[in-house]
Amino acid sequence: MIDRLIEKIEKTHAPIVVGLDPMLNYIPAHIQKKAFAEYGETLEGAAEAIWQFNKEIVDHTFDLVPAVKPQIAMYEQFGIPGLLAFKKTVDYCHEKGLVVIGDIKRGDIGSTSAAYAAGHIGVVTVGSKTYAPLGEDFVTVNPYLGTDGVKPFVDVCREEKKGLFILVKTSNPSSGEFQDKLIDGRPLYELVGEKVAEWGAGCMGKRYSYIGAVVGATYPEMGKALRKIMPKSFILVPGYGAQGGKGADLVHFFNDDGLGAIVNSSRGIIAAYKQEQYAKYGEENFAEASRAAVEAMAKDIDSALAQR
Amino acid sequence: MIDRLIEKIEKTHAPIVVGLDPMLNYIPAHIQKKAFAEYGETLEGAAEAIWQFNKEIVDHTFDLVPAVKPQIAMYEQFGIPGLLAFKKTVDYCHEKGLVVIGDIKRGDIGSTSAAYAAGHIGVVTVGSKTYAPLGEDFVTVNPYLGTDGVKPFVDVCREEKKGLFILVKTSNPSSGEFQDKLIDGRPLYELVGEKVAEWGAGCMGKRYSYIGAVVGATYPEMGKALRKIMPKSFILVPGYGAQGGKGADLVHFFNDDGLGAIVNSSRGIIAAYKQEQYAKYGEENFAEASRAAVEAMAKDIDSALAQR
Repeated sequence: MIDRLIEKIEKTHAPIVVGLDPMLNYIPAHIQKKAFAEYGETLEGAAEAIWQFNKEIVDHTFDLVPAVKPQIAMYEQFGIPGLLAFKKTVDYCHEKGLVVIGDIKRGDIGSTSAAYAAGHIGVVTVGSKTYAPLGEDFVTVNPYLGTDGVKPFVDVCREEKKGLFILVKTSNPSSGEFQDKLIDGRPLYELVGEKVAEWGAGCMGKRYSYIGAVVGATYPEMGKALRKIMPKSFILVPGYGAQGGKGADLVHFFNDDGLGAIVNSSRGIIAAYKQEQYAKYGEENFAEASRAAVEAMAKDIDSALAQR
Repeated sequence: MIDRLIEKIEKTHAPIVVGLDPMLNYIPAHIQKKAFAEYGETLEGAAEAIWQFNKEIVDHTFDLVPAVKPQIAMYEQFGIPGLLAFKKTVDYCHEKGLVVIGDIKRGDIGSTSAAYAAGHIGVVTVGSKTYAPLGEDFVTVNPYLGTDGVKPFVDVCREEKKGLFILVKTSNPSSGEFQDKLIDGRPLYELVGEKVAEWGAGCMGKRYSYIGAVVGATYPEMGKALRKIMPKSFILVPGYGAQGGKGADLVHFFNDDGLGAIVNSSRGIIAAYKQEQYAKYGEENFAEASRAAVEAMAKDIDSALAQR
């Protein structure tokens, strides 16, 4: 799957992930109104609004980007109907040829991690049949439980040719509270980064490993250090745009081959119509504003990479 | 909710949680057969088998214990049908008067954690209506992202009178890989324990905080240290039985008031019929074996506490 992701990045010239994190207050009134008219102000109504919103954004951006990253919490908060909208979104993005990164941040003890891995990127067996229940291509994983919590995900990646992005240094303000603590003079996130490199060594695609890392755009200096610690791991970089990261901050997340990183933007793309610079599109044409925001982001990253 | 949990512990004299982690290979053949006859060898068939299995175990144990802990991964692995069985299990346990601890180990950046908290222990708003989508009483939370990832869960607990168990020291063999690393001479799990005490200080029930911790039974010495660091936090202790923990290992997780800990057993209870000592019940009467295993576990903990 990492080979396919790279192929698509090279084809689109855009190392960009559209974060499909649809908070209800991002969704234009006309879509909510239509969904509520059909399903009532119910969890099903919220799920329908999310799905229609996602579909329009995907329809307007799928040819520009290699991948999408639905954040499962935004669906899970609406219970089972919300999770049905998640699954529908994953399937639709696959129809459109997109690589799907499930932002699930799961992680547990061995047998439990194995169940998460089977459900999201692997297969489960029921009697004599097998199924791929949720069917993402990559998932994000929390490493706090250590190797035996991560290994079941790695094993499934090897079997199914899927991939992971393991949390190393997250983009949020208090990520340093534990992740930056010094252990024998070195921050915890570097130790986690070393483990990512180690876990990934046994799962190599043509140029990069199936096992990548999450490192926030909001910490460019740490990205620089981590890039060297995990030379063969792709870095998924959240925090661009709304969280404060800029193209110039991102150059150190990439290797000299111009690869090695893929940058996520959620709010900055899916709620672009709410920003002053895209207000001209109007709420009705929100997905066109999203398309323009993707184009601007691709240009920003491209020119930052050209100038380094 | 912590007050209700304590009330139920005092009533049952059993600080025990039944871990509803139904792997398909724990489920007796006759239940699987019946479910597959009705729904086929499908995800729906697997979900039905899980639900019928859970129901029978709950029916045979609900009067002996204060709480259950469904591990959501075991349901999520069967996709949407599996998650429907999770929800059905949560609702049924509530009907039976049990406290439900959702073992979800979620944790993300602020706005995303807020979505998880709303969906699992809080409410979401859709237009003019509000819903409690999944409706657990407590959830487990992963602290790797720091305070701003945990705080939205704490906020919901305060509003909704729900509770948390935050991962401090997990029961698995490689938990030490990151959790035991020394920071200024002290292990990371102690720092996390201090934060749990700090987060919990603002959310006090009558005697204990709404904000508890997870500390594995497999690490009794660490339990002893953490008990002192978080005197007002309940400790959820996994790892009893199948993972190797025994009653005698557990005494230090409790305070002198005989409270402060609640011990989970999953496989040891729900798959008790597979153990030699309960084989006499036979596969058909698996839930009676589970009841006997709960009784034996309550006795083991009780006599360990009496002897300290």
